Amino acid sequence: MASAPASGEDSLIARYFRPIATDPGAFNLDDDAAALRPTGDDVVVTTDAIVEGVHFLPDDPPDTVARKALRVNLSDLAAKGAVQAGFVLTLALRDTDEAWLKPFAAALGEDVRHYGCPLLGGDTVSTPGPLMVSVTAFGRVPAGKMVHRSGAKPGDRVLVTGTIGDAALGLAVLKGGKVHAALGDASARDLLIARYRVPQPRTVLAEIVRDHASAAMDVSDGLAGDLTKLCGVSGVSAVIDLVSIPLSDPARDLVSRNIAGIETLIAGGDDYEILCTVAEDRADAFMQAAQRAGVAMSSIGMIVAGTEAPKFLDGQGGEIVLKRRSYSHF
Amino acid sequence: MASAPASGEDSLIARYFRPIATDPGAFNLDDDAAALRPTGDDVVVTTDAIVEGVHFLPDDPPDTVARKALRVNLSDLAAKGAVQAGFVLTLALRDTDEAWLKPFAAALGEDVRHYGCPLLGGDTVSTPGPLMVSVTAFGRVPAGKMVHRSGAKPGDRVLVTGTIGDAALGLAVLKGGKVHAALGDASARDLLIARYRVPQPRTVLAEIVRDHASAAMDVSDGLAGDLTKLCGVSGVSAVIDLVSIPLSDPARDLVSRNIAGIETLIAGGDDYEILCTVAEDRADAFMQAAQRAGVAMSSIGMIVAGTEAPKFLDGQGGEIVLKRRSYSHF
Repeated sequence: MASAPASGEDSLIARYFRPIATDPGAFNLDDDAAALRPTGDDVVVTTDAIVEGVHFLPDDPPDTVARKALRVNLSDLAAKGAVQAGFVLTLALRDTDEAWLKPFAAALGEDVRHYGCPLLGGDTVSTPGPLMVSVTAFGRVPAGKMVHRSGAKPGDRVLVTGTIGDAALGLAVLKGGKVHAALGDASARDLLIARYRVPQPRTVLAEIVRDHASAAMDVSDGLAGDLTKLCGVSGVSAVIDLVSIPLSDPARDLVSRNIAGIETLIAGGDDYEILCTVAEDRADAFMQAAQRAGVAMSSIGMIVAGTEAPKFLDGQGGEIVLKRRSYSHF
Repeated sequence: MASAPASGEDSLIARYFRPIATDPGAFNLDDDAAALRPTGDDVVVTTDAIVEGVHFLPDDPPDTVARKALRVNLSDLAAKGAVQAGFVLTLALRDTDEAWLKPFAAALGEDVRHYGCPLLGGDTVSTPGPLMVSVTAFGRVPAGKMVHRSGAKPGDRVLVTGTIGDAALGLAVLKGGKVHAALGDASARDLLIARYRVPQPRTVLAEIVRDHASAAMDVSDGLAGDLTKLCGVSGVSAVIDLVSIPLSDPARDLVSRNIAGIETLIAGGDDYEILCTVAEDRADAFMQAAQRAGVAMSSIGMIVAGTEAPKFLDGQGGEIVLKRRSYSHF
């Protein structure tokens, strides 16, 4: 409206976010709410916030902050077997610094297009504190078909996508210290940093997970702790073969040189890989389907009966007792 | 899971929020996501965050913070003609202070039951900064029937529920100063403070608004500014009769004594009343339906053709030029 001065918040929304909110259900961000049309599917809802100094570093580039905020939620949807359908965004900002907001919105727009996940609405508030980006994302599954944490059964195979621990090492690189010093190779450092800053949600696996997995979740707080949660809710335990846990080349190098311990990798956070269980007779079909979709999937152990925390065995079959299993906020 | 120590975040969720997440779609908060079952309706989505020191005061009681966080979202849904169906909650906390969290969760639970709006899931993160409570709420409307800001037409009546400006005055009371000093009556002060801290979302009007209103939004940033936005998106203007704007007894008293100006009331925020427009021939039926639902609704002016900002006329028909129309974060 040209003749009435737009408030700061409105002009901010108009300038940066309206151009990427092209879905009809977003109503051009001109309204108080968005609408998701009925398809007969369940709408799966997940929400994850990232906070400056906690989930990202104050000098992380704004484009990576945008991608991380959206992708940690897409990762949750994929692990639930849900195909992404849109999201709303809450931004708590200290100010409206164009040098930060412009690349933030541009990267968000790229991810919106890449993942086919429209921005539907949001809220922008001022805060005197750290930046916070909160996303609530929506996905669709056929009614009742969301994949739960609670379906793991004794005898099921435990599988995980991609590689584990890179993000924890990436954070260690950014913090300097021995991990940074041990990596002479800039490309290895860059790979690990990218894994910390920009998760690769396994959205292409959503339907495959839905068709095969007995239980699934994404690995966000550390493989060991997240598997412990999955087993707890399922009422089972697990035996994990540490040497089967998939590591990237730089991670394997750091472990072999004793710069980083395997515990750091499996209790670190921010992997955003899919951890799932599958009945033994479906494991091969599942892994082949994932491979066809272009995602590496590794078998790392078995679900067993019991209520104790999962066991982690070294190459000689001895149990490694973990001092720490996951990242906790409190 | 008894044998594996729960992380701080997990035990916090278990202790305070699991008891109020009784909807089957919340999956006992044991999962990474919630599910909304298909009903053939559109799912209307709104998100609003409140920040300590911005939307609530650091010493506001935790029970009122919980209610405000949920209710500002319920207010949005009602204004869109949507019946509330659930919400997810993101809490950014400095610590896990039981003396704060316990009354927060208890009050949230009371509102969940009172409004029939289940807690479906959430995220709890640590922050070194101010508390922040972000809610994304879901409502349902028959497909395509969400009420928009954009449907106002010349000749439509402009209506508003309840009374305007009390919350702005309540905030002024809490800040001390002349408004506080002018109110000798503690019950008047308490009424205004309650209006600031605990909005009364007009959820009972959702279906009535949907059946009658040509455009609607809730008044959160000030009546004048919000009407300007509604007119802007509708491509119309409005003429508002200032003496018709509904005021509470304490607000009327403060205005009559020149302690508070009408501009403060209509440019203040936090009313959470419904502002809507309705075709002249439906206005009486609409107002009667609202009255039967127990909500006062006042006619405050007319929509007119034009693109200029709405005009506000005093009792003599003279235009009052507003220096400020609404609260803006930036």
